[in-house]
Amino acid sequence: MSSARLLAIVFTCALFVTNVSMQAETLLSIMPVPAHAVAGTGSFPISGSFPIVMEGYTEPRLERAKTRFLASLTSRTGIPLWQAPTATQQQFIIRTGRPSKEVQQLEEDESYHLEVSPTRVLLSAPNPLGILHGLQTFLQLVNITPQGFSVASVTIDDSPRFPWRGLMIDSGRHFMPLDVIRQSLDGMEVVKLNVFHWHLSENQGFRVESKLYPLLQQKGSDGNFYTQDQIRGIIEYARDRGIRVIPEFDMPGHATSWFVGYPDLASGKGPYFIERNWGIFDPAMDPTRESTYKFLDRFIGEMTALFPDAYFHIGGDECNGKEWDANPRIQQYMREHNLKDDAALQAYFTGRVQQLVTKRGKITVGWDEVLQPDTPKDVVIQSWRGPDSLAEAARRGNRGILSAGYYIDLNQPASQHYVADPLAGAAAKLTPEQQRNILGGEATMWSEFVTPENVGGRIWPRTAAIAERLWSPKGVTDIDSMYRRLAIISSYLAYTGQMYNSISDQMLQRMAGNADVTSLKTLASVVEPPKEYSRESLASYNSLTPLTKMVDAVSPESDRARDFLRLAKLIAAGQATSEEWKQAREWLILWRDNDAALQPILAQSALTVELEPVSRTLSQTAVIGLSALDALQSNSPVSEPVRQQQLAFLKSAEAPQAVLLDMVVPAVEVIVNATKP
Amino acid sequence: MSSARLLAIVFTCALFVTNVSMQAETLLSIMPVPAHAVAGTGSFPISGSFPIVMEGYTEPRLERAKTRFLASLTSRTGIPLWQAPTATQQQFIIRTGRPSKEVQQLEEDESYHLEVSPTRVLLSAPNPLGILHGLQTFLQLVNITPQGFSVASVTIDDSPRFPWRGLMIDSGRHFMPLDVIRQSLDGMEVVKLNVFHWHLSENQGFRVESKLYPLLQQKGSDGNFYTQDQIRGIIEYARDRGIRVIPEFDMPGHATSWFVGYPDLASGKGPYFIERNWGIFDPAMDPTRESTYKFLDRFIGEMTALFPDAYFHIGGDECNGKEWDANPRIQQYMREHNLKDDAALQAYFTGRVQQLVTKRGKITVGWDEVLQPDTPKDVVIQSWRGPDSLAEAARRGNRGILSAGYYIDLNQPASQHYVADPLAGAAAKLTPEQQRNILGGEATMWSEFVTPENVGGRIWPRTAAIAERLWSPKGVTDIDSMYRRLAIISSYLAYTGQMYNSISDQMLQRMAGNADVTSLKTLASVVEPPKEYSRESLASYNSLTPLTKMVDAVSPESDRARDFLRLAKLIAAGQATSEEWKQAREWLILWRDNDAALQPILAQSALTVELEPVSRTLSQTAVIGLSALDALQSNSPVSEPVRQQQLAFLKSAEAPQAVLLDMVVPAVEVIVNATKP
Repeated sequence: MSSARLLAIVFTCALFVTNVSMQAETLLSIMPVPAHAVAGTGSFPISGSFPIVMEGYTEPRLERAKTRFLASLTSRTGIPLWQAPTATQQQFIIRTGRPSKEVQQLEEDESYHLEVSPTRVLLSAPNPLGILHGLQTFLQLVNITPQGFSVASVTIDDSPRFPWRGLMIDSGRHFMPLDVIRQSLDGMEVVKLNVFHWHLSENQGFRVESKLYPLLQQKGSDGNFYTQDQIRGIIEYARDRGIRVIPEFDMPGHATSWFVGYPDLASGKGPYFIERNWGIFDPAMDPTRESTYKFLDRFIGEMTALFPDAYFHIGGDECNGKEWDANPRIQQYMREHNLKDDAALQAYFTGRVQQLVTKRGKITVGWDEVLQPDTPKDVVIQSWRGPDSLAEAARRGNRGILSAGYYIDLNQPASQHYVADPLAGAAAKLTPEQQRNILGGEATMWSEFVTPENVGGRIWPRTAAIAERLWSPKGVTDIDSMYRRLAIISSYLAYTGQMYNSISDQMLQRMAGNADVTSLKTLASVVEPPKEYSRESLASYNSLTPLTKMVDAVSPESDRARDFLRLAKLIAAGQATSEEWKQAREWLILWRDNDAALQPILAQSALTVELEPVSRTLSQTAVIGLSALDALQSNSPVSEPVRQQQLAFLKSAEAPQAVLLDMVVPAVEVIVNATKP
Repeated sequence: MSSARLLAIVFTCALFVTNVSMQAETLLSIMPVPAHAVAGTGSFPISGSFPIVMEGYTEPRLERAKTRFLASLTSRTGIPLWQAPTATQQQFIIRTGRPSKEVQQLEEDESYHLEVSPTRVLLSAPNPLGILHGLQTFLQLVNITPQGFSVASVTIDDSPRFPWRGLMIDSGRHFMPLDVIRQSLDGMEVVKLNVFHWHLSENQGFRVESKLYPLLQQKGSDGNFYTQDQIRGIIEYARDRGIRVIPEFDMPGHATSWFVGYPDLASGKGPYFIERNWGIFDPAMDPTRESTYKFLDRFIGEMTALFPDAYFHIGGDECNGKEWDANPRIQQYMREHNLKDDAALQAYFTGRVQQLVTKRGKITVGWDEVLQPDTPKDVVIQSWRGPDSLAEAARRGNRGILSAGYYIDLNQPASQHYVADPLAGAAAKLTPEQQRNILGGEATMWSEFVTPENVGGRIWPRTAAIAERLWSPKGVTDIDSMYRRLAIISSYLAYTGQMYNSISDQMLQRMAGNADVTSLKTLASVVEPPKEYSRESLASYNSLTPLTKMVDAVSPESDRARDFLRLAKLIAAGQATSEEWKQAREWLILWRDNDAALQPILAQSALTVELEPVSRTLSQTAVIGLSALDALQSNSPVSEPVRQQQLAFLKSAEAPQAVLLDMVVPAVEVIVNATKP
């Protein structure tokens, strides 16, 4: 049943009251699920212009939000809404209590109240932030019905579970042009994320214009950097969408690109060059020279003036200390200052830098490693190594945010991110007061293996599942519901300009040249990139490697393979309907026969030739799956040697080929295993 | 065989020399076909950065062109090309003779010479215009091969057949935002169009900021207009792409929106309101009052200063004269001045306005109607009524451009536009000197039935066929070749940001809500919008009508239906291969069975419910087609009454349903007719 229909049915069942989020989840096909929703009767039709009345406090940002809201509604429905209202019996009231802070703050009230009835919409909020969120909720509620577009009557009271809900984008490794950043902010607004963490410097590139130290961008960026005006534009764009912008300048490691223009900052001899490889590298700032802090003082002064947010991220991860170990002067300094190891030296450095940040009136954020015995309590820890380090920070009185579990560059399924909870694991055992130190989380889009072209398809739609984890009540955990709604929001995101599905198609077309891509798409629909950090061991990459292969074009998660696995499990459990049997068989036949159509195309292009064995394996896997289906359906036993042979083949087919995983294999294994008498 | 392969084969057949365009057409899968091409051996690989050397004259526009060229090449290949050259044994030389005119002129030299060899590309041109064209040619020549991306060796000498190759966009009826305009200019550059004719005022909207007469945009545009800064930005953007921008301010008719703010300009009493309907309306400027010319003098002064092009379009079409007839003062003026009818009054008006344009140093362009017995010889006539009026103008010594035959709003097939030739028909009988008065042509995108959303899918890819007609040698007329290359350029245009195929999919998704769109897409792939002006009689429309139905989402021309018609003709002629029989049968089965899957979805949405009979008819048509195929294949005669019954059904199925044509019908008619013993 389509979810629109489900919704319609639920709504026509007359009044139905709940304040339990699980029921809101069933009620509303939106993401993130609101905290509290009560269905009404009837619906608010969207068939032409209607007056939008601004009550209470207003400001230009709200006027712009209204304009954008109407444009989004037009984009969603195709109905021109810029003309004078035609439907005056309808009203859309926006009632705002007071201004939000001049610079958006952590823990500002983001709540809103949305009442939709057949003739009136009332959206009220204590301040503009809630209004921005409520408008997004309304837009997601728009549905096509036999009578036209409308929003079913409902009353929603909503507010976030966590105040820090972020997306980090790494503009350092692969530069991300402004339109990519703006598009990401557009998507963040849709799913109510409120922190854009901008990773702006890396070994592979320094991405911000510094007027005080222009060699940073001139020598460290290959010309790919943001001017200060552009940064200000992005900050304004983000503020319009209720999003804070937190810059990160990673130090003392991950900083090779700084040293190209300013080698004296480094601990080694130089000369330094922009790093072209991926990994952890030796160059590190020299924590023992006062000139380093003098430089950083002025630099931090310039950047804290540019970025108005109260928080300032100084990185601090993955410094291997090798340049320190190799430098006698630094070794001597460590002895003289009783710094017993590299960790101690880094802690000293972090402490000094943190003072420079504090001096500018800002709060320091750093990765796990910055948490040391004497780390000041106002430093915020971003946990990438696991939930335990986050809990440890919280226990010690430092606030923290979770990123472990939200590494969207690792190509894990949305379900895996969805179950990662900032307050699970060790954090569940904290006192309520300690738990309050855990501010939320951030999805992290590291960019070794994404380009401006395909980054959207890595961020979306999975980040919507993370956004729901961070916004919705703790009890919203139904994975099937999440996937059902993820498909809907993925389609909705296209209206907001996230064209990742089209881009994937286009990348496949590029691979195939002028050949018909139908069979290539069939293959693409059931393969996935390798998970976690295994990609680098399967082929060789650097920052100049084109990311134009199948692994770059496909979604991190195959919807088709997930659907097929579900069918396989039902079949294995003897619970599949005849429709499900039929569907499974149809897909297996499609995959079996696809190879014959695809092979002639693959040889024609350097970008596809490596797929020859992948396509063959898919076909062979499907043959095995079909024979197992036959055996199950006819109740004719499969001999043990044959089954073992099949399983051995499938085992070998689990291994990546052409840097791709064949996601049909696990499902066929389930079916073959079920043939055991 | 894929064209990439074909190209590769032709090229590996060693050296092969030709200066006949028909052979260039076979040789190169690009559009428009160049005037002259000679194949070489080997190819220039594109695998990493290579130095681009600028020789001779240079200017900032050429530097920007180089940057855009590299970005396009990256977009096409996915290879990062912004870093320092890695392949120094390769060279790409751009050699420019001299500057082009400060303001791009008609009849400037647009020729270029492009030599591609395995280690060197030489692109030379007398001025930057040729360089811009040559870069586009090179980009289209990039192909994926088993060895990677490359351009096969070739020597091209190219120049256009006509100097005026335009696209008109009507921003008056539906306002087109700047990004739509810029995207259109991007596409124009790809196919070497060089005139953007911007229709800026209409009954439904006045779209330019006037500082002298601000009520024009303030009262005449619903807030949807271009500021002068934005206009200047577009002119610069166009100039960077070798494109002139010619504004059109339509007068004395098509001008209701002017009168909302300035009713004294009109011939009636007023008050006037922005027109919401489509059609020809009565309001017209008053040609009898000096105040009208005083206004227009200042206005034309302002606009000719804003638009630097030497040509200035004053419209002049479709003035019905009713306001003149109804105004006694105007009637008296006509008698006093011996103006015997409305045509004479309009000719008087045109003459006066033309003087105002001349006074500003510009040349007047107008639609057919401005050509009157005493029209000055320097007025350029844009022919919309037919090729005869163009020939007539040329005979009389006026220069002219053809738009009749290039009305892309009429949803005709590319083949129909392709055969329209500015020098065919009456023009073929002109003397060579008279023929030189025919400057070229313009595709016209009138916007009654397009929005910013779907306009791209109306302009492209068909306008590429028109662009080829205007650029390529006269002998390039092979329609099969055109369609083969049109498919390739359509795919190429996606790399330049023309996402019309994705947008079409998205519009179908909007129609279907959250339902699966597979079966809706199957229906969409074989229907077309009604042709010419028939749409308005099939449903009622005004400027507020959402354009969100199937007719708005589908391509004006169904590729699938065209392919099927080809198969049907082969089958009817007894010339189809077994593969072709099989394909025809598969499609018919798909269409027959589609209805069962689609009907339950159609009822759920107000945007699709009208498609129920369309889907049913397609299914019934396919059933007839299959039975006719069976009869032909088994050589079993169909009884005359049955065949007549089938043909009667098909005849009725030719009629539009839900404002759509079922394009499978003509092909099935061909098959059924073939069953006649």
